Amino acid sequence: MTRTTILHRVPFYETDAMGIVHHANYVRYLELVRIAWMDEHDRPYREYVRDGLHFSTTRVDLRYVRSSGFDDVLHVMTWLEWVAGASLGMGYEIDRDGVRVAEGLTEHAMVDTSGRPRRIPAEHRERFRGLARASGGSRTRRGTVDRSR
Amino acid sequence: MTRTTILHRVPFYETDAMGIVHHANYVRYLELVRIAWMDEHDRPYREYVRDGLHFSTTRVDLRYVRSSGFDDVLHVMTWLEWVAGASLGMGYEIDRDGVRVAEGLTEHAMVDTSGRPRRIPAEHRERFRGLARASGGSRTRRGTVDRSR
Amino acid sequence: MTRTTILHRVPFYETDAMGIVHHANYVRYLELVRIAWMDEHDRPYREYVRDGLHFSTTRVDLRYVRSSGFDDVLHVMTWLEWVAGASLGMGYEIDRDGVRVAEGLTEHAMVDTSGRPRRIPAEHRERFRGLARASGGSRTRRGTVDRSR
Amino acid sequence: MTRTTILHRVPFYETDAMGIVHHANYVRYLELVRIAWMDEHDRPYREYVRDGLHFSTTRVDLRYVRSSGFDDVLHVMTWLEWVAGASLGMGYEIDRDGVRVAEGLTEHAMVDTSGRPRRIPAEHRERFRGLARASGGSRTRRGTVDRSR
Repeated sequence: MTRTTILHRVPFYETDAMGIVHHANYVRYLELVRIAWMDEHDRPYREYVRDGLHFSTTRVDLRYVRSSGFDDVLHVMTWLEWVAGASLGMGYEIDRDGVRVAEGLTEHAMVDTSGRPRRIPAEHRERFRGLARASGGSRTRRGTVDRSR
Repeated sequence: MTRTTILHRVPFYETDAMGIVHHANYVRYLELVRIAWMDEHDRPYREYVRDGLHFSTTRVDLRYVRSSGFDDVLHVMTWLEWVAGASLGMGYEIDRDGVRVAEGLTEHAMVDTSGRPRRIPAEHRERFRGLARASGGSRTRRGTVDRSR
Repeated sequence: MTRTTILHRVPFYETDAMGIVHHANYVRYLELVRIAWMDEHDRPYREYVRDGLHFSTTRVDLRYVRSSGFDDVLHVMTWLEWVAGASLGMGYEIDRDGVRVAEGLTEHAMVDTSGRPRRIPAEHRERFRGLARASGGSRTRRGTVDRSR
Repeated sequence: MTRTTILHRVPFYETDAMGIVHHANYVRYLELVRIAWMDEHDRPYREYVRDGLHFSTTRVDLRYVRSSGFDDVLHVMTWLEWVAGASLGMGYEIDRDGVRVAEGLTEHAMVDTSGRPRRIPAEHRERFRGLARASGGSRTRRGTVDRSR
């Protein structure tokens, strides 16, 4: 299984005056599950950081389907959609009790500590290729990624 | 002029350990400029809130072009892309010293305090129609909005 | 045992450009462990919320002893220091690998949904009294609470 | 005048499900006004950062007197309470329409980029001494600072 799911119990400080989770917080949930995915499928992200490498976020596209609130337990799932020489794309689904709350994608470029683009180290890129193939990606979401830009 | 620009001076607490603004914060910048846009072109958002109405965010799509850092002054600009009976779309450009930092779009659905969809009150919808026409929208960005979903 | 400890693994989005956890985030950690303490020793906080009651925060006093960084696992511990008719005080210690990172206290007043002070319901106040006695409080920290204000 | 005041208009994303500003955000307001104070009375904080120096926060003590909500305009005021060789203390008052919302203090230690304590550069320390004398400090708040630790 090449997908990773974390449970996130919504803290009070992530809610807003509409009584629901503020939409900007979901972008953070995507980061939480990405870190967990790397733990599980690649290597702890802190090891990239120690090597002076970061997966800089170049795109976030999130669709909010239903709201969630304080103390809800969210299932946040991610998988690798695609990988290129110096970038990769992840897909996401966020559910609560089996009902879709949000879905989206992010894109990332590998950079060094001064922000310059770097190729993903070969061994990791190879592993990512296998993972992207195995996860199958999601045709629908892939279609929303505009690679021509 | 139907566009609104705010200046945002980056606080230290919006930076992360890469030494740059954490990408999730840009979603908040979009909210800041939306509020300013409503002040300028429609009515203060707090008046919608007092009437028990909210523009719930249903989509955020952000492309990060360059990083920004502590104490940078960002120009965050927004305009109305389109409006429908109960929803609307906004476009955004974020620049620093005339250089593009990020660009994106958001979509919103009008809801009441219990989260049920509501039509945008007629007089505001009418004004929004005029604003969307006048701003011209951005063909490129509009093309990335998948309305068929 | 009347103390509650949670583990918090530091996400990247809680770090700042000093390369460490931004100090404002620790205030959130206190909330996380308070919620866990209520689960364990009183009742889930969401049940207070459903009854239209909140423990509004009236004071936060935090001393930062050492920094922590991305992916550190923090042990965040809390206990009830004291309880009065409509308010209570909690103590906190945050450690990493057995080393003190921060310590502090918070004070809270029970309010209803319109923010008016309310007495803590008798059965809960009684339970809190027992918990405060059992935890013993911390003389040192108690000394820093200025109750005369 | 040795005090600095900024206006902060509360964004929606700083509210919580109680319908008010979440208490953790006030810690950020203190940082915003500290930066403005340095601009006005010392030098832009980014210049310290460029020199590899930071005023690390070692204590935050905040008392919340009244709540505030979306779109409220807060007056956030700060002054220098005291300065020592490698640390300093600031006082704060936050008002809305002339009514006290919160008040507090913070303490800071100068550190280098690896977190080691550093003396405040002599010329700045001298200026700070003058500012602390001139602001007079606030006896009441000063009393709550436990310097014996």
